[in-house]
Amino acid sequence: MFNNFFQIEARCGAARAGRLCTAHGEVATPVFMPVGTLATVKGVPQETLEELGVEILLANTYHLFLRPGTETIRKLGGLHRFMSWERALLTDSGGYQVFSLSDLRKVREEGVEFRSHLDGALHFLSPEIATAAQIALGADIIMAFDECTEYPAGREQARQSMEMTARWATRCKKYFEEHTGEAPWKRVSSFEFQVSSSRSDTGNSKLETGNSSQLLFGIIQGGMHADLRRESAERTVEIGFTGYAIGGLSVGEPRTLTREMVEATLPHLPPDQPRYLMGVGTPDEIVEYAALGIDMMDCVLPTRAARHGLLYTSEGKLAIKNARYADDAGPLDPRCGCRVCARYSRAYLRHLYSSNETLAAVLNTAHNLAFYLDTMRRVRQAIDLGHLAAFLSEVRSHSLNSSAHREDPA
Amino acid sequence: MFNNFFQIEARCGAARAGRLCTAHGEVATPVFMPVGTLATVKGVPQETLEELGVEILLANTYHLFLRPGTETIRKLGGLHRFMSWERALLTDSGGYQVFSLSDLRKVREEGVEFRSHLDGALHFLSPEIATAAQIALGADIIMAFDECTEYPAGREQARQSMEMTARWATRCKKYFEEHTGEAPWKRVSSFEFQVSSSRSDTGNSKLETGNSSQLLFGIIQGGMHADLRRESAERTVEIGFTGYAIGGLSVGEPRTLTREMVEATLPHLPPDQPRYLMGVGTPDEIVEYAALGIDMMDCVLPTRAARHGLLYTSEGKLAIKNARYADDAGPLDPRCGCRVCARYSRAYLRHLYSSNETLAAVLNTAHNLAFYLDTMRRVRQAIDLGHLAAFLSEVRSHSLNSSAHREDPA
Repeated sequence: MFNNFFQIEARCGAARAGRLCTAHGEVATPVFMPVGTLATVKGVPQETLEELGVEILLANTYHLFLRPGTETIRKLGGLHRFMSWERALLTDSGGYQVFSLSDLRKVREEGVEFRSHLDGALHFLSPEIATAAQIALGADIIMAFDECTEYPAGREQARQSMEMTARWATRCKKYFEEHTGEAPWKRVSSFEFQVSSSRSDTGNSKLETGNSSQLLFGIIQGGMHADLRRESAERTVEIGFTGYAIGGLSVGEPRTLTREMVEATLPHLPPDQPRYLMGVGTPDEIVEYAALGIDMMDCVLPTRAARHGLLYTSEGKLAIKNARYADDAGPLDPRCGCRVCARYSRAYLRHLYSSNETLAAVLNTAHNLAFYLDTMRRVRQAIDLGHLAAFLSEVRSHSLNSSAHREDPA
Repeated sequence: MFNNFFQIEARCGAARAGRLCTAHGEVATPVFMPVGTLATVKGVPQETLEELGVEILLANTYHLFLRPGTETIRKLGGLHRFMSWERALLTDSGGYQVFSLSDLRKVREEGVEFRSHLDGALHFLSPEIATAAQIALGADIIMAFDECTEYPAGREQARQSMEMTARWATRCKKYFEEHTGEAPWKRVSSFEFQVSSSRSDTGNSKLETGNSSQLLFGIIQGGMHADLRRESAERTVEIGFTGYAIGGLSVGEPRTLTREMVEATLPHLPPDQPRYLMGVGTPDEIVEYAALGIDMMDCVLPTRAARHGLLYTSEGKLAIKNARYADDAGPLDPRCGCRVCARYSRAYLRHLYSSNETLAAVLNTAHNLAFYLDTMRRVRQAIDLGHLAAFLSEVRSHSLNSSAHREDPA
């Protein structure tokens, strides 16, 4: 039942290049998924994302649950239609964001009570409610509602959290199976929309209302304990999902530990199903994890760093505010083929950033995403050609700062 | 000598449709010039402005003088190259912004001493310095350095200010004539640029380094006194410029008075030269002034209003934050053909604005500019077809709030 939506087409060591088939088009893997928290990649119009070759975007259930509300989006035909994005979407379950609220949340067996970071209003998320919200949003890939284990956490705390996640995973799967076919786009013909698909000039309508469904992925937890990771993987696989995510990492632990946990988990995941490492990473990290056999990753780093004027280039990371760029007529990255590098100089980008101009965020984000997407394109090509090791050492020689970033609540 | 850069091709009543020929391409008139204060129309990439059909942009000398500095831009090849905009540019002289600083400035015969709105640093602008700055920037059309008369101002104050403006105009013209051919793009071949024209994918290189020059426009002042306006016009025309701007309006006076002053000035301007009304206006105002025989206008209103979620449509002005749009799947303006209206719903735009997302400003600004540019396209067509009166009454029936806006210092 799994292989009809994920095909591995090439291997190179542990790495694999493949295709993820969703109801909204195919996604070449390994893939980096830009984060569009509130149904927008901050500052970047959807037409630019299409131009960049983005095939799948991530959006955050927690944020959309609060604004504009998942029911509002469902009534408007689902997230694809709401944000006019006809390619694939993945939503997280909200587990990570609720975890990040720390003092504002109370975890019980039934679910999590939390206060909105916006207005302090009390809300409740449970495996069933988070799954229902994701069905209402209608992303192609949706995630089980997990409890993200704190870092650091002792063995007993990590075990309890992992076991709660496993019990919640069972409930998510049950709810999901009882509500198959309820994604808004599965019922699209029963709605009357004023902005019809034909008005969109994306020229890329991939909507299929036929035999495709949403796909539910499970999430592995277990803190920084290799044996709990293994146990979490085994229990989650036993419940059975169409893909598996490694969660609870990039929560403040050192990078070597992240890698150790990924390596402890991977052997216990089915080899023919997609593996998603949540919340990583830097350009060199995404290459390294692809080399370990990860198929999907997401991170706010390229977009958030862009807004802070930190730009990734073939020569390393660059802080555009630096005075040395004030009269630099050269392109941001001479080896980059993106629109920003083709058209604008470092001097201009520096001026926009220094002057606090909105266009700085717009252009910087487009470039950083181009850099990440191009990196993954090269990873896939290197896997195809069997040259991944060479590419990996090239990337390491430009190694960038390590730290991973996901979308926090506020 | 004047008619080689401005041709009137059609007339309808007092209105005229024509073509302004600049060193960076032709501009169909009447034209509305979007404001790109700091060498950027806030939030909108240059490729989007090209797509919208923008043929000329305005930039502010005062702002660029402070950041990044006109000498920096000159060294980088001038403003066109700096901001990667190969179509026409107009710079104001800084007179209006310095005027807006009120307490921070001291006006003397020699020029104006003022404190930067950014850091309080002391600066000095004079007719010569402002003209030199505009030559360094290299805009196709540059403006004389004027003293913008306060509102309200008594006759004597208005007369003194108008006379100062006339004396300054003579000095501007003298300086300009002594420095012809010094625009950075006139010497472009002597520079070595890393970002060459060929890297730009605008597909629209209009740079001519041959027989074209910068054009200097004079500015009419005279406060709200019709006789002083006439005298200012006569004196400015006597000095002789390639075009004439009506300045000192949209400074807080009622709209009827603005119109009265425009009507008092126009008969005293040469009929075959371009007439530029500075700092107006609303969509209905730009149509009305075109009908009076104005050829060029600029205003921050469409871009600033967009950032505040105020959107111009064929059905009037719309505040997108309004709760009624939260579940409105229809396009912003069903009669607008812009990319934003073709792709995104009111519900989505409302969500972006309510969530304080950067994309709100990006999309709203693109739409408002499309609306303004389309309005002027229809004005030109109506003049061509002799139907301007009918178009004017159609526009008046959707009459929008009156008030005019220019770029203040901060």
